[in-house]
Amino acid sequence: MQEMKTEYLKPEEIEKRSFEIISKELDDMGITLEEGHERVIKRCIHTTADFDYAGTMYFSENAVSILKELIKNGTGIVTDTQMALSGINKRELEKYGCSYVCHMSDENVARIAKETGKTRAAVSMELEMEKGLPLIFITGNAPTALMTIYDHFMKGLYTPAFIIGAPVGFVNVEAAKEMIIKTGLPCIVNRGRKGGSNVAAAIMNAVLYEIRENI
Amino acid sequence: MQEMKTEYLKPEEIEKRSFEIISKELDDMGITLEEGHERVIKRCIHTTADFDYAGTMYFSENAVSILKELIKNGTGIVTDTQMALSGINKRELEKYGCSYVCHMSDENVARIAKETGKTRAAVSMELEMEKGLPLIFITGNAPTALMTIYDHFMKGLYTPAFIIGAPVGFVNVEAAKEMIIKTGLPCIVNRGRKGGSNVAAAIMNAVLYEIRENI
Repeated sequence: MQEMKTEYLKPEEIEKRSFEIISKELDDMGITLEEGHERVIKRCIHTTADFDYAGTMYFSENAVSILKELIKNGTGIVTDTQMALSGINKRELEKYGCSYVCHMSDENVARIAKETGKTRAAVSMELEMEKGLPLIFITGNAPTALMTIYDHFMKGLYTPAFIIGAPVGFVNVEAAKEMIIKTGLPCIVNRGRKGGSNVAAAIMNAVLYEIRENI
Repeated sequence: MQEMKTEYLKPEEIEKRSFEIISKELDDMGITLEEGHERVIKRCIHTTADFDYAGTMYFSENAVSILKELIKNGTGIVTDTQMALSGINKRELEKYGCSYVCHMSDENVARIAKETGKTRAAVSMELEMEKGLPLIFITGNAPTALMTIYDHFMKGLYTPAFIIGAPVGFVNVEAAKEMIIKTGLPCIVNRGRKGGSNVAAAIMNAVLYEIRENI
């Protein structure tokens, strides 16, 4: 078990020690992460205490660099859960003028979902895609969010700027993630069943903090 | 890999199928959960796709029944992250008149934390405990939140009504959880490193949904 420190450690000190422990344990397991992917993966492990993330995270070519540029250019984000939006560092987003939105609690989204038989997540994504602006899509819950983005892209209706694909679950989740990977669109996707709003937020925050450290 | 369904499944249907898969896989692993603990543990697995939760969740005696009664009596909740609060079903809480609050973004909490050298989570818990009302504490992030509750209880200053202890992490997390278990206070605690705001919310939601189904 972890040794107990009786004094109150500062959050930044706890975080530093945590990342040292994660790095050491990855070393002990003989796992070497690609330099460009390291921060994202370690932050997902930090958020979950689950080392499986070292083996399942897919990055399209230059994914992290592309996402950094999009953020620095003030590209807006949309999430598929309030929880993911709640976990993303808004102060960092605001530095670059990135707008952020989640439509999951909107009354009109609930109404449209009921009328059309679609999920609220699908309707939320459609609402944003119909505006036609480039966006970063951050999904930690709904495979239907990913499926809707995929449909719109394949029909030539809309091209997302970036997709963070980290829904969690047992039905349709793996397949929806693989569909996104196959599009060749810029993305970071956690393959398999695992993920979550916390993981989606962790991926985004890792990239935000990388930008901050390099300025 | 999961079979892909092309039609849009309704969220409640996806959830039903997911729980069937979880139950089947637990059976296949030879794991039988205690009846009173089953819903909470399965919802944590549902939220994370991580079956480790089948082996790590600690319930004090009659924990679920006690928590149900507290909710039905309108006991307020306080969380250690906005994300946990964001993940808890507020519509269900409101049915029973349970107030809910998270002080992590309050400016005065940041100020007091800076002045005292405590974490914001610790200050957030203190603010609520000083009011002297019975509360359900829901923690998915900060071991310092648990340590502060422990300190106040041991000094005879305050007795929490219930504690959901699911911080995640690599420093002080396991020990803080064990401290809470040792108090004998009514609690549900996920032992070990794992947890998170999503897990804390899942525990609370599982109990809220159990009440709803039995009414």
